[in-house]
Order: sequence, then C-alpha cells, then structure tokens
Amino acid sequence: MPQKLLLKIRYNGAGYVGWQVQKNGKSVQEQMQDAVEEIFGARVGITGCSRTDSGVHALEYCLCFDPPRSMELKRIPFALNAVLPRSISVLSCEEVPEDFHPRYHAVAKEYLYRFYDGSAPDPFKQGLAFYEPHGLDAAAMNRAAGHFMGRHDFRAFMSAGSKIEDTVRTIFFSSVERQGADVTFRVVGDGFLYNMVRIMAGTLLFVSAGRIDAAALSSIIEAGDRSACGKTMPAYGLYLKKVYYKREEVPHESESQ
Amino acid sequence: MPQKLLLKIRYNGAGYVGWQVQKNGKSVQEQMQDAVEEIFGARVGITGCSRTDSGVHALEYCLCFDPPRSMELKRIPFALNAVLPRSISVLSCEEVPEDFHPRYHAVAKEYLYRFYDGSAPDPFKQGLAFYEPHGLDAAAMNRAAGHFMGRHDFRAFMSAGSKIEDTVRTIFFSSVERQGADVTFRVVGDGFLYNMVRIMAGTLLFVSAGRIDAAALSSIIEAGDRSACGKTMPAYGLYLKKVYYKREEVPHESESQ
Repeated sequence: MPQKLLLKIRYNGAGYVGWQVQKNGKSVQEQMQDAVEEIFGARVGITGCSRTDSGVHALEYCLCFDPPRSMELKRIPFALNAVLPRSISVLSCEEVPEDFHPRYHAVAKEYLYRFYDGSAPDPFKQGLAFYEPHGLDAAAMNRAAGHFMGRHDFRAFMSAGSKIEDTVRTIFFSSVERQGADVTFRVVGDGFLYNMVRIMAGTLLFVSAGRIDAAALSSIIEAGDRSACGKTMPAYGLYLKKVYYKREEVPHESESQ
Repeated sequence: MPQKLLLKIRYNGAGYVGWQVQKNGKSVQEQMQDAVEEIFGARVGITGCSRTDSGVHALEYCLCFDPPRSMELKRIPFALNAVLPRSISVLSCEEVPEDFHPRYHAVAKEYLYRFYDGSAPDPFKQGLAFYEPHGLDAAAMNRAAGHFMGRHDFRAFMSAGSKIEDTVRTIFFSSVERQGADVTFRVVGDGFLYNMVRIMAGTLLFVSAGRIDAAALSSIIEAGDRSACGKTMPAYGLYLKKVYYKREEVPHESESQ
C-alpha cells in the first residue's frame, strides 16, 4: 500500500478561480486531479493547504493525496510536469505519515504582496506586481508593516461577508523591502482572515501616499474599523510564498532589519 | 515646428509578429502608430532601430517620429502608456536632431538570451526564458561565449534564406553568467545576421550538454558551417537589451569577469 504523498507546487494564478474546485471556472485543484489521474490511472481526492482566491499566485503550495498505486518518488514531479499546463509546476514530492494534513498541520503561512514603481509600467511585471506611478515610500510602508506584528484582533482587515467569528491572529513577521523598483510586503502569520493580506497591502499603499500615518497603524488595528484601512488590493500582486509545518522554521520578529 | 522625437520603449514580444508591420498579425510598430495617432491626432510614420523577429522581447527599443504637433516632452510617455496595450511601455522621450536615424546611427546592439535550469520548470518564467531540465554548465558556456568576441565572419551563425553577403561582424562583448537558476548569455556587437544570437545561444546550449567542446568554438566560427553549430533557439528567450549610439558607452572585452 503506497504511502500518502506531500507535493509542493508553484502556480501562476492568472486564469484560475483559485485552488479550490468551483463551478464557474478552472481551478488549480482540478488541474492537479486531472494530472494525477493521467499519471496514476485513477482519480483521487487532493487536499490543499489553503483556499487561495481567484487570481492569486503560489510560489510553494502544499497538497496531499493517497496515490492509487506505487511510483518511484523522484519520477512523480517529472511525470506530472509533463502533463500539467505550464502555469503549474510540481517542485517536489515526499512521503508523509497517513495522518498528515496540509491545512490543519500548518503552523504558519507566508505571503508576499508585490508592488513596484518607476517612471513607466513594466510589461514584464504585468499581472505579477502592482504598479504605483507616483512612487512608493518603502521606508514608511516598512514602519507601518511593523505594527502588524504580534497577536491582534484583525477584524478591520477582513472583507465583509466572512462568517468567521474569531478574528484574532498572530503575525510573526511583517516587513516591506525595496530592491530597485520592486517593493515587497512580506508577512508571516498563524492564519489570515478573508482578504486580510490584500487589505494590509492596501493600507500600506495608503501609508506610502501619505493618506494614513505609519504611526497610526496600531490604533487602526485596535479600532477594528474596516473603513479606516486602505483598499483591498487586486489578487494578481499576492503570492502564497510558503507554508510552515515546523515552529522552529517560522521567521520571526528578530529577523527584522 | 516640433522637433524629431526619440522614444525608448520596452515590450513583451509574445503575440506580436515583431517590430515591423506585417500582413499576418499584430506588430509593435502598428501599436505604436495607433497610439501616436490617438495622442497627437494624426498618423505618422515611425522608424525603428531594428526589425525584431516574431516573439522576441525588447527591454529598450529605440524609435523615432516627427510629432504632428507640439506636446510637453515629459507628458508624452504618460499619454502614450495610457492608450498602449500593457505589453508595450514607453520608458522615455527626448528630442533629437532632424537627421538622427535610430537604425543607421546605432554603433552597437546588445542582446540577452535567457536560460534557466533547476528541478522543475517555473510558471513565472514561462515564455520569458528557456528551461533546460538537465542543468546548465554556465562556466563552459562562458568559456565558449568568449570565442565570439572580435571581428569574425559569422556566416555559420546565420539562418538559410538570408540574402546578406557581407557576413563579417564585430562582437565587442560576449559572456554567460549564472545568478541562481538563471543563466544569461549577453552579447554586444556592431550588427547581427539573421537569427545570429539565437544560433549562438543554441551553440552554447550544445556546449553545456557536452555536444560541442568550448575550445572548438573558434574553429567552428572559422569553418563557416551552419551544421556544426547548435540549433536556432526559440524567440521567447531573446531580448534586445540596448541600442548604443555612442562608441564610448559600448561594453567591451576588458569588462569580462
């Protein structure tokens, strides 16, 4: 009896309705199920580490399934990549204990939101990063991002319509860094509310524009008022970067620069 | 009477038949003419620095036109970018003397050919770089690339069908560098034959695979036999990086690392 497999995949979310199978379009989950069926000769359920929204990208998404038959581990990524669309790539494959769950056993997730500035939009960043023609104040954004760290009630950073009642989350790491024209918001937390990273990113953009003072972030979090935050940024700038299953690997505040 | 304008643009060549207007598809030149007509209210001829082939990208392509009416210089890139498709971006605009020609006055052009390796293809490099699953020997490729430098008859590195008779070109700089999984061939020359950079890149790929010895490059160039070279690489890995109009700015051999 072959053992449960954990696969790490990377995908460009453009054109997908997100990870989870939906009636209204192509999902990454369905593409993976099709590929697994083609390679293993039988259709099986695939469990992901997270719903990701329509259009969101993933640099290292984790998923599990019970393979219908045995196959040499190192062959599996090659075999799947040969049949997957080019927007999805299997990075690695390993065996995990039968009771491993890619969602419930995650201790933290890391997201990136990518911005860039400069005098003209870049055709090679189209659909991959948010362009701000008026310039980005990465230092102010980083000061503001620091306030997200810690255990807070993030109900202000949640889109309406979510039924979640416990809106307290812990953010282990939060920073904004500039490299040339690229300005990246990086955030690691034990969980995220609906659209939370995209609203955090929108709030940092307001800070950059001088519409919100970086020092005000703590009181904005505390007040819990969605309307005091920035806009929900578009999905195409958002990347699920990594899922952590070991506490000792989770980046934390002292790494801050 | 407004002065002649030199524009630098960047474009993702996917979906275009190249720079030049063709009957069989959309060209970058046509998109630029449409945009200029929309902004200036009259259609004018636009002269480019080079034909680029179908699917080839450009990081800094140069073009000129005589504006039908005056417009504040710094407004022009913003105005054009507002109407251009997102695959084309105007980086800058400056005035040049009436007799300036973006093609005939170029003293050198720089191209990149982008490869990458690693255990899996990267969805975010799809259509932007050539993936080699078996790994790339960048050091051997760099040794081979060094042999392109100097004044040589490059007839071996020209696709059949070209009517050009003078096949002697001078390569000022040629190197291969690795940064992580990215392996980039960079070449600067006073001119390039039809598909020359793509055949050079294919030959370097053969060197990486051990099918051609790096030390044999000089004799391959000298022999002038197309069949001794590698394949013509696909257009999507090729980038026109820069056009030089001043001799003192052209990179040259002593920069080699």
